Amino acid sequence: MNKAIFIMGVSGCGKSTIGQLVSQRLKIPFFDGDDFHPQSNVAKMSSGVPLDDEDRYGWLVTLNKLAKKELQKSSCVIVCSALKQTYRDILSSDIKNQVKWFHLVGSFEQILERVNNRSNHFMPTDLLQSQFNTLEQPEDAFEVNIGLKPEEIVEIITEELKMKSEFGLFGLGVMGKSLSRNLAQKGFNISIFNREVKGTEENIAINFKNSHKELQTAQAFSDIEAFVNSLQTPRRIMLMVNAGKITDMVIEDLIPFLSDGDVLIDGGNSNYLDTKTRYDYLKEKNIHFIGVGVSGGEEGALKGPSIMPGGNKEIYNLVKPYLEKIAAKDANNAPCCTYVGEEGSGHFVKMVHNGIEYVEMQLLAEVYTIFKMIGYTPDRIADIFESWKLKANSYLLEITIDILRKKDGDDWLVNKIVDKAGNKGTGNWATIATAQLGAPSTLIATALFARFTSFYKEERIQASKNFNKEVLELKLNNDDVLNAYQFARIINHYQGIKLISEAGKAYKWQLNLSEIARIWTNGCIIRSNFMVQLISVLKEDDNILAHKKIINQVKSLKPSIKKVVANCILNELAVPCLSDSVNFFNAYFTANSSANIIQAQRDYFGAHTYQRTDDATGKFYHTNW
Amino acid sequence: MNKAIFIMGVSGCGKSTIGQLVSQRLKIPFFDGDDFHPQSNVAKMSSGVPLDDEDRYGWLVTLNKLAKKELQKSSCVIVCSALKQTYRDILSSDIKNQVKWFHLVGSFEQILERVNNRSNHFMPTDLLQSQFNTLEQPEDAFEVNIGLKPEEIVEIITEELKMKSEFGLFGLGVMGKSLSRNLAQKGFNISIFNREVKGTEENIAINFKNSHKELQTAQAFSDIEAFVNSLQTPRRIMLMVNAGKITDMVIEDLIPFLSDGDVLIDGGNSNYLDTKTRYDYLKEKNIHFIGVGVSGGEEGALKGPSIMPGGNKEIYNLVKPYLEKIAAKDANNAPCCTYVGEEGSGHFVKMVHNGIEYVEMQLLAEVYTIFKMIGYTPDRIADIFESWKLKANSYLLEITIDILRKKDGDDWLVNKIVDKAGNKGTGNWATIATAQLGAPSTLIATALFARFTSFYKEERIQASKNFNKEVLELKLNNDDVLNAYQFARIINHYQGIKLISEAGKAYKWQLNLSEIARIWTNGCIIRSNFMVQLISVLKEDDNILAHKKIINQVKSLKPSIKKVVANCILNELAVPCLSDSVNFFNAYFTANSSANIIQAQRDYFGAHTYQRTDDATGKFYHTNW
Repeated sequence: MNKAIFIMGVSGCGKSTIGQLVSQRLKIPFFDGDDFHPQSNVAKMSSGVPLDDEDRYGWLVTLNKLAKKELQKSSCVIVCSALKQTYRDILSSDIKNQVKWFHLVGSFEQILERVNNRSNHFMPTDLLQSQFNTLEQPEDAFEVNIGLKPEEIVEIITEELKMKSEFGLFGLGVMGKSLSRNLAQKGFNISIFNREVKGTEENIAINFKNSHKELQTAQAFSDIEAFVNSLQTPRRIMLMVNAGKITDMVIEDLIPFLSDGDVLIDGGNSNYLDTKTRYDYLKEKNIHFIGVGVSGGEEGALKGPSIMPGGNKEIYNLVKPYLEKIAAKDANNAPCCTYVGEEGSGHFVKMVHNGIEYVEMQLLAEVYTIFKMIGYTPDRIADIFESWKLKANSYLLEITIDILRKKDGDDWLVNKIVDKAGNKGTGNWATIATAQLGAPSTLIATALFARFTSFYKEERIQASKNFNKEVLELKLNNDDVLNAYQFARIINHYQGIKLISEAGKAYKWQLNLSEIARIWTNGCIIRSNFMVQLISVLKEDDNILAHKKIINQVKSLKPSIKKVVANCILNELAVPCLSDSVNFFNAYFTANSSANIIQAQRDYFGAHTYQRTDDATGKFYHTNW
Repeated sequence: MNKAIFIMGVSGCGKSTIGQLVSQRLKIPFFDGDDFHPQSNVAKMSSGVPLDDEDRYGWLVTLNKLAKKELQKSSCVIVCSALKQTYRDILSSDIKNQVKWFHLVGSFEQILERVNNRSNHFMPTDLLQSQFNTLEQPEDAFEVNIGLKPEEIVEIITEELKMKSEFGLFGLGVMGKSLSRNLAQKGFNISIFNREVKGTEENIAINFKNSHKELQTAQAFSDIEAFVNSLQTPRRIMLMVNAGKITDMVIEDLIPFLSDGDVLIDGGNSNYLDTKTRYDYLKEKNIHFIGVGVSGGEEGALKGPSIMPGGNKEIYNLVKPYLEKIAAKDANNAPCCTYVGEEGSGHFVKMVHNGIEYVEMQLLAEVYTIFKMIGYTPDRIADIFESWKLKANSYLLEITIDILRKKDGDDWLVNKIVDKAGNKGTGNWATIATAQLGAPSTLIATALFARFTSFYKEERIQASKNFNKEVLELKLNNDDVLNAYQFARIINHYQGIKLISEAGKAYKWQLNLSEIARIWTNGCIIRSNFMVQLISVLKEDDNILAHKKIINQVKSLKPSIKKVVANCILNELAVPCLSDSVNFFNAYFTANSSANIIQAQRDYFGAHTYQRTDDATGKFYHTNW
């Protein structure tokens, strides 16, 4: 991939000299930024009036255009002081992945002496001082000390440019492999790593590289030190390893080889509290840490996942170009990747994403079970689901249609699959977060518990013999079931978003709920038409159940959910999530609940006190019952 | 309280001398155990044949009877080598609280020299050695070194007897106060402690002591060191402080003043995992730690709570006499206190107790809300509950009747209580444990979430305006509601006990579920007729839903729960726990569930694999969908 090599630094640091030497060495064009000032700027400078930012704007845009044009053909070297971040943002606009910054650094005295030793040059002290005052340290530039000889500096720069990858991916499991290919397909120079275990995991990285054309220029490693050293600094290393202890072990393995300012990106399904702990731990070692939720499964990771990064925002900007480029694109072609917030907020949001996913899956299983009881075949149910796409399309609906149509010999494959549903942690964590934060995501817990109950297979078989099913007749039409399904999905999304919003308050994260819905409209498992609708709803209201559009939908769907759940219960059919959705909603829109009884009981036996409806001060009372 | 002072140790340690001196000093009778051997033993010994344990049995029983008889009148001193724990168990049988052991200890050489220096005495080395071999170190004896002068030893013993309390209670909150009075009423010499905070908490302990007659002989402290020093060793200190960080801080405050072998008893609602951590931490410092669940509220703590101790069993025996004495008594007059198991099992069981309690409370609130919707007054509902006592009596039903009858001016007090139900942690922990252990206690989670939802008061009021209640007519008779309530209670107890049993397996605790039900039949908040029934059910089956008696009950109650829940849902009445009970049960007795769909979805997007119904080996398959 062609590179625009920007050499920056204060006046007198030697940019032009070094830039020309690099251009000669690499046989690529050289441009001195100062040659591109418009006449008006030249006139101003000649008359001794310093340029302001407005004067510079057009000039910086010109240089950015120049770089873009050159990049079509080849790499190039451009020299420009670029002291402020805003200048650098303009210079690298739209070509962030292809820009490489080199910052020539020296002390005030060093530069003053060097300039004044040049023939025909004299720089007043206060001019140089103003340059130093203006300089905003770049986070993503490679620094070279001007104390070295010019040929040494050129050596360092070409070494850094030639040999080093810009992004490292650690761990080549299902997701790591897909993400590596995705990165390489987008034109990034990457290094990939997988450990070597004699007999079981040998040559994973090199074999993987060799089996995919897009990885031709990637560097493959099974040695951690070599892997780390193959990366440009500040290093960007994405960890795609198992969450939990493994992640901590990998971090410990990497630390000895990292440098100040390197960035670790945890793309696993880590617990959001662990992410905060790791962030704090690594901060002490001057290593940056970004916790990133990645959803989309194997295919999504390859073609474009939904990406939920959390951590320090400035540091995020160092990895943003990579993550945005590999992410899925929404309907407006914007990346399904947005900075979520501080600490473990990215992983928290991913956890809730998975919780919502648990419920969406469980609801499909429940409506399937209703139609099955009515007597429909999997094919017929797939046809019904197909007809639902108009009103209720989602990725999970689509794959369920595929699943229901899959044959295995004369039978449908689903009929051959054992009904014990596993779980890998995020559903549990979401339920635990609900309990800890006091935000009732009843559906996530219910979907999780339904999986647990499915695991009691032996007990269920025994119980089915001990208790007889007394079934009447399930009188439900397709529209009723669709409406009930849609009702429960609205409650599911309400609760999930509420959980995120409550976490945002509790942990003081600045979250943009509409943006979170937006990055969930493509690439991830819970993408759906309804999610698209939520982008605008959440722009107007954090609480979707308070939004006029949703209120009207809920009102029109309510008769169906009541009918469906009541019928299922009378027919002894387990529909825990459908049922819970209407029970939660019934509690939710009850102004005066029965919790007064519970407060009275708590006060009776534990003297826990209660508040009174006729005392607005909120004072606590105790009765000697 | 009179004391039987046993002075023990190997032959030649000086028991008789010291015993006589103590008896003279305290002016109480002295008995030398050796004088009470039956003729047969004397004959055996005279002929040089050593006594075996069978010979000793009758003799030890005689000494135990002697002690009991003397204790009716006064304290006494009894001298006996009592080398084995079994001997000491017989000697202190039925009078454990009144027995005080003093162990005279010296080295082999020390004792050999001392014996052989006495006139007319000679002890062969191997005889003394066999005494040392036989000696089992007593856990609960006060040790005195025989190297001291006799008068010093007597001083130490009388000091220990006269001044020191046998049990300490740290923290005089609602529960701590009640437990102190309970202990004192049972005749124990106790020390009580509460911290002193200038201006807010002053003279708590001393004022409390002075305001209750039974505390006349108690020692009251606001200085930790003085409190600790007022206790006999090994010290028994029960902590009745807030769970969490406060408990850790109190432990740190105590440690500097404790000695090896002292026992801390945590009677707070601590998290069971914290209890394990504290146990391990204190073990390193040679301090014992027992985690004790205490249920019964303020009144139960005073009159007799249900007590659930966990930890090392031998150490538990040091505090057992105290805990059993203050506990409630079951129908057979046995204490509602039993050793639960290792580590934090006592606190775990207490946590589940509270989870079951949450559900029982919520169910009463739900049936109240049904009757309220039908149009009944609180008094009428109380009458209905009164009629339920025959079939469904429980402490919580009883107090709810009292609550419903309580008037406040012209209105009922319940109508004045704000419907926001609080929670103090154990319900959350039980829900978290459910998620962590994979045991679906759906009802506990649902009851917890119902409290959370009750806290959304403002949102609920707004939602009640946005959505209209569409109510038909609630056609339910009292029997249907009672049956539905009983059905849900069975599921609640099934799930709670299942959670305990799964924890037992996961943590390798040896739990006796029937015993746990037994200690819950009195003193605690969830005592009920049904709990009494569960004692025998759990003797026969760990899974109550597999027990014939319960199966028949569930079968006869099922039509009612279906009818009640379906009706409530059609009438938009929130009955989350009633509803969840039937949904859980419907899933539970379904041999073939819809979880096959979820496994197929997981395999589709995440390659998580599935098992096949036609492959009994349990092999995992993946399909390229």
